[in-house]
Amino acid sequence: MLGHGFMGSAHAHALRTISYMAWPPPLKPRFVELVGHRPEAVAEMARRYGFERATTDWRVLVEDPDIALFDNVGPNDLHAAPTLAALNAGKHVLCEKPLGRTAPESHELWEAAEAAGVVHMCGFNYRFAPAVRLAREMIAAGEIGEVHSFRGTYLQDWLADPESPYVWRLDRQRAGSGALGDIGAHVIDLARFLVGEIVAGDGRVRTVFPERPGGPVDVDDTVEATVEFEHGAGGAISASRLCHGRRNALTFEVSGTKGSLAFDLERMNELQVYVDDTRPGADAQGFRRVLVTGPGRTHVEQWWPPGHLLSWADTFVNEIHHLLRAIAGECDVAPYGATFEDGYRAAEVCDAILRSSEQRACQRIDYRPARTVTSPA
Amino acid sequence: MLGHGFMGSAHAHALRTISYMAWPPPLKPRFVELVGHRPEAVAEMARRYGFERATTDWRVLVEDPDIALFDNVGPNDLHAAPTLAALNAGKHVLCEKPLGRTAPESHELWEAAEAAGVVHMCGFNYRFAPAVRLAREMIAAGEIGEVHSFRGTYLQDWLADPESPYVWRLDRQRAGSGALGDIGAHVIDLARFLVGEIVAGDGRVRTVFPERPGGPVDVDDTVEATVEFEHGAGGAISASRLCHGRRNALTFEVSGTKGSLAFDLERMNELQVYVDDTRPGADAQGFRRVLVTGPGRTHVEQWWPPGHLLSWADTFVNEIHHLLRAIAGECDVAPYGATFEDGYRAAEVCDAILRSSEQRACQRIDYRPARTVTSPA
Amino acid sequence: MLGHGFMGSAHAHALRTISYMAWPPPLKPRFVELVGHRPEAVAEMARRYGFERATTDWRVLVEDPDIALFDNVGPNDLHAAPTLAALNAGKHVLCEKPLGRTAPESHELWEAAEAAGVVHMCGFNYRFAPAVRLAREMIAAGEIGEVHSFRGTYLQDWLADPESPYVWRLDRQRAGSGALGDIGAHVIDLARFLVGEIVAGDGRVRTVFPERPGGPVDVDDTVEATVEFEHGAGGAISASRLCHGRRNALTFEVSGTKGSLAFDLERMNELQVYVDDTRPGADAQGFRRVLVTGPGRTHVEQWWPPGHLLSWADTFVNEIHHLLRAIAGECDVAPYGATFEDGYRAAEVCDAILRSSEQRACQRIDYRPARTVTSPA
Amino acid sequence: MLGHGFMGSAHAHALRTISYMAWPPPLKPRFVELVGHRPEAVAEMARRYGFERATTDWRVLVEDPDIALFDNVGPNDLHAAPTLAALNAGKHVLCEKPLGRTAPESHELWEAAEAAGVVHMCGFNYRFAPAVRLAREMIAAGEIGEVHSFRGTYLQDWLADPESPYVWRLDRQRAGSGALGDIGAHVIDLARFLVGEIVAGDGRVRTVFPERPGGPVDVDDTVEATVEFEHGAGGAISASRLCHGRRNALTFEVSGTKGSLAFDLERMNELQVYVDDTRPGADAQGFRRVLVTGPGRTHVEQWWPPGHLLSWADTFVNEIHHLLRAIAGECDVAPYGATFEDGYRAAEVCDAILRSSEQRACQRIDYRPARTVTSPA
Repeated sequence: MLGHGFMGSAHAHALRTISYMAWPPPLKPRFVELVGHRPEAVAEMARRYGFERATTDWRVLVEDPDIALFDNVGPNDLHAAPTLAALNAGKHVLCEKPLGRTAPESHELWEAAEAAGVVHMCGFNYRFAPAVRLAREMIAAGEIGEVHSFRGTYLQDWLADPESPYVWRLDRQRAGSGALGDIGAHVIDLARFLVGEIVAGDGRVRTVFPERPGGPVDVDDTVEATVEFEHGAGGAISASRLCHGRRNALTFEVSGTKGSLAFDLERMNELQVYVDDTRPGADAQGFRRVLVTGPGRTHVEQWWPPGHLLSWADTFVNEIHHLLRAIAGECDVAPYGATFEDGYRAAEVCDAILRSSEQRACQRIDYRPARTVTSPA
Repeated sequence: MLGHGFMGSAHAHALRTISYMAWPPPLKPRFVELVGHRPEAVAEMARRYGFERATTDWRVLVEDPDIALFDNVGPNDLHAAPTLAALNAGKHVLCEKPLGRTAPESHELWEAAEAAGVVHMCGFNYRFAPAVRLAREMIAAGEIGEVHSFRGTYLQDWLADPESPYVWRLDRQRAGSGALGDIGAHVIDLARFLVGEIVAGDGRVRTVFPERPGGPVDVDDTVEATVEFEHGAGGAISASRLCHGRRNALTFEVSGTKGSLAFDLERMNELQVYVDDTRPGADAQGFRRVLVTGPGRTHVEQWWPPGHLLSWADTFVNEIHHLLRAIAGECDVAPYGATFEDGYRAAEVCDAILRSSEQRACQRIDYRPARTVTSPA
Repeated sequence: MLGHGFMGSAHAHALRTISYMAWPPPLKPRFVELVGHRPEAVAEMARRYGFERATTDWRVLVEDPDIALFDNVGPNDLHAAPTLAALNAGKHVLCEKPLGRTAPESHELWEAAEAAGVVHMCGFNYRFAPAVRLAREMIAAGEIGEVHSFRGTYLQDWLADPESPYVWRLDRQRAGSGALGDIGAHVIDLARFLVGEIVAGDGRVRTVFPERPGGPVDVDDTVEATVEFEHGAGGAISASRLCHGRRNALTFEVSGTKGSLAFDLERMNELQVYVDDTRPGADAQGFRRVLVTGPGRTHVEQWWPPGHLLSWADTFVNEIHHLLRAIAGECDVAPYGATFEDGYRAAEVCDAILRSSEQRACQRIDYRPARTVTSPA
Repeated sequence: MLGHGFMGSAHAHALRTISYMAWPPPLKPRFVELVGHRPEAVAEMARRYGFERATTDWRVLVEDPDIALFDNVGPNDLHAAPTLAALNAGKHVLCEKPLGRTAPESHELWEAAEAAGVVHMCGFNYRFAPAVRLAREMIAAGEIGEVHSFRGTYLQDWLADPESPYVWRLDRQRAGSGALGDIGAHVIDLARFLVGEIVAGDGRVRTVFPERPGGPVDVDDTVEATVEFEHGAGGAISASRLCHGRRNALTFEVSGTKGSLAFDLERMNELQVYVDDTRPGADAQGFRRVLVTGPGRTHVEQWWPPGHLLSWADTFVNEIHHLLRAIAGECDVAPYGATFEDGYRAAEVCDAILRSSEQRACQRIDYRPARTVTSPA
């Protein structure tokens, strides 16, 4: 694993939990090596989570023959190089979102992963919230008919105070983009996961506070956009880090010809479902607040009985469990998990929105294929 | 009054209610004459609401010297001609939204109203929901700081079933536009009311079901757009008549540097308010569900004690009460009520979104002034 | 009408509204005479609502041959004598709750009403909230199976501040009881309306603040009780005027063998409904938020289309419309409306709870019949 | 650990998680031995969670000198004997609720724990939901003034279907009581935790479905009760396993002279807080939905940033972390954790409610002290 901030903790917690919560686990994780840039901190974190070794040089890790899976939870500017090196070394890879800082960087990573023939996953963990998975399954089963509209928003408030200090996520060189790539990308991924491919985007990207204590901000803090899906559906996507009172409000509403679904990450164990009940005489219709808990609904089967809530961190248990199953050959990462192709495609949508904002005009999106690499016989 | 559909009923109910609920009333309405196109229906409606006379010819009404206020609640294609005639006859006018079917038609109405020197109001009644008025007052008082973002949506479901039959609102000639002008205009008006002038719009207007039992549909049923405000705020606006389970969901969220406000018409007596509490030691912060009821909060002072909900129809009582006060010289229609200028400006935003959808590019909005008409000395 | 406080305003508003909202109205109200104890105030109120005459002597009114319906919205200690006089004069009667200040006083009123052979109604208006009526109809149709449990609460906050001043409602002589009879009685009535007869009660009645600025308090401000229904169902009822933040929170939850229903007056247009959907494969179950609006759901048929909320005051329009229909011979007051018998029975339950609190033991309730009065042939 | 059902899994998960989530952990758990009655199942569970040994004889475990902490998550009829044996062996003990099946059995356990001089905890885990802890801290700080009322309810639906099959929890011999002791006890414990000691109880205990497929039911499935607290506060408590749609709805509302707090376990990361904001001019008051997440609010400090929800299972991590801190001498179990005394006192309240139901009269509660055991010098 590269990185040991709060996201590193979430991944390590998930890997620890899988060993007993998904029983029998598809694979039993071994915590070989952890990379960080401050020697004492990385050593402490390695002790905390039981990594066998700690280093400040990611090159050591990616070449380590004991390591089969490289989990990259580092800052965005450390996604590309270490992941490419790990791919070249034939390791399976899990890389946090955004995959790269731009669409081209993301494409390079996807292409390399395909060429390496390994299992690759991009960390769009909200696909693994049980309520989101149920939404996908209901849509696939036609329960809300043909989807025509998607509205999604990811609002946070950690930068709502203009005096919040500068951090690395506000530096374009390190982060790639701001609210768009950090949280807007989650909405984009869920739009693709639930509705289908996005073929055009048009939005306005803003930096409401270009100066903060500690430095100038050169990434967006707010974005509003409209998108078009293949097959004619449409939608709206927005994201902001400036919305007081919205701690972590990833919301979506999907509208189909027969029903609607709505979700809010701040109440992540719930899915709001509107479908007409067909009991004879039923006219008491309305959105249902469905608690998506209990066996059969939470990916990992051994979670708790109905009504016992899962946590934000448990989405990672579900996600990495799915990855381990894929590595064990029990399933593919797609379609329930996000591959590097999904990471790349989300990046293309982000880049299209950025271009549209500069040019003040809608941008069609041309996804590039991964070059086919023919292995010699 | 011209028109006696459900909107006619809402206005007549309001006029009846004002006589005793706002006590003493600024003016006591007299129900002189009602216009409709089916003789029996208009006669019945006149009996129901106590109009002295009924006619099928609006020209009779606009020339009637007993009438001081012309209330136009007819279909959109009957907004312009009768209202212009009433203005020419020197009558005060209340016209339902959308003011005209297009920005030019709306501009003509505004200009005529200014030239006539009468009191004019456009029926954006949601300004008169007490929770919306409180939002405006909190913003004006700086309670949420400087506003930087607005997100608003108006979702209904009365056309969500593809088999819902054709009605006049689906005919561009009669209605002007579809979801955009009918309900999107309400969102646009509230955006302007709460945040300020809109200077650019960019959206996608769609007709998901172009055929319905009874005829082809040539207006939009769904729209998603982004808008830019003067002074740099931004926003997203969408509207749809196709969203199962959303009976009448006009929602908005306004984000400022010090707080946030959110509203949902389906719970129209509530305003969600996030502002940091400044009690020493307070750290239990969150959105407050404020029941906006009781004296001092509901326009008309004689409504009920705190906790006793108002209805959708009561917004019209508040609105027309405000209009009567303006006619009585107690206040201006602006800024709390929408004038014909507001009706025109909302129409310009709608038209800009329509153009942006055709041209797939952002449209700046140039508002035209009303020509100054100098009266001869 | 006797009384012209806020409840008088609610009744007068309803009587005015019925004339056009329920079209054609079963009877067209004529506003003959208003009684109050302050001459100037009653004259002003009469002007406001269009009463033909005003008086300070209720004896004048109850003897007036022009009056067919006596509407008593006076304070609780003016319920009995004027209503008895009106009954003796053969007038139909509507009396606000609580019917009497005690069960015996209430019984006397019921008996007199039966003897008079007139139409009588006790003002439990929440039966006429459309969501409550839907609850009743769903229970009657067996949609939630056999009901076994009821939990209801009425919480207000107008006395939550210990410094709130003394008013007549805190005087046992005038009010009869406190939170119990004033708002607890509403819960008791809805329990009876939805579940059936209450056969035993056991509770604790408390006066948290026995002194207030202006005088000593000799009625309860808070009550918690358990009740038993005939046929074996059970329940809990509580009421308080001391609960900060609960402006007008009359809530109930009814549990049956097949489903559940829940209601909150602060969101009075909604009914929360849990019934298992029987579509093949449906497993997305949860409480539905049903907006109880639109034709067929709101008593008076001419209210607004679906999604357009009704107000607290509109429950009185529905209630008095029902009363006028009963007077016109179109229906009986029971079972949808509360008769004086219902008023009496609610009073017996209140008295049982008061006795149980004194004796600290459960009290069975023996309802007394009305003496049969045989009219001479 | 004795027991390995779903509660065993919750405890084992917590013990595993503490090792890294509370960093540095107060003590690092060693998983010595697991007891169950089916040899294969207990062996499998031991492998799953990493216990060194497995046995079907709890006597082996309680005498094992390697074991310092005995964690009893077995069925209620296996709480007393093994726990007493462990106490006699000088081990620290954690016992799930209800402590014993009756107040005398619970008292015996408390007395033995006191006599043994070890650390003892009863598993009332909801004290460790961060929102509940915040409620306690706000009350202690006087933020809602003097508490006068508590209303609490625990509703589940796992037995709502009359055809749900018989399980051991429906056998009085094994379970002690039904909904009362299983889930009502949680409400009782929170009432005591938040408000203070309960001095009287009066309730009705019911068995709506006395027969189920598989056997007769001799415990209650529903209970409603009123309680009295020392210092004059009052309250209502109810519990049921029969409420369709309520998966796990432990709710409470606490009312004080200056504010109110409300909680619902189905949204366990939220506390609803009503306190008057004292900013000059503030009149937008209402219940605040406080997301109780983030550092300083979640017991174990290393949980996630604000807005990242915790799970039901995380309450056990917090609980057992507190226990390990107590064993390490860093704190006492009380007042934040429940001791065996708390377990005993909750049992007295349950027994009083059972008695009151039989005798149909309020029961005062006399808590017995633990006999002082003087150790010889």
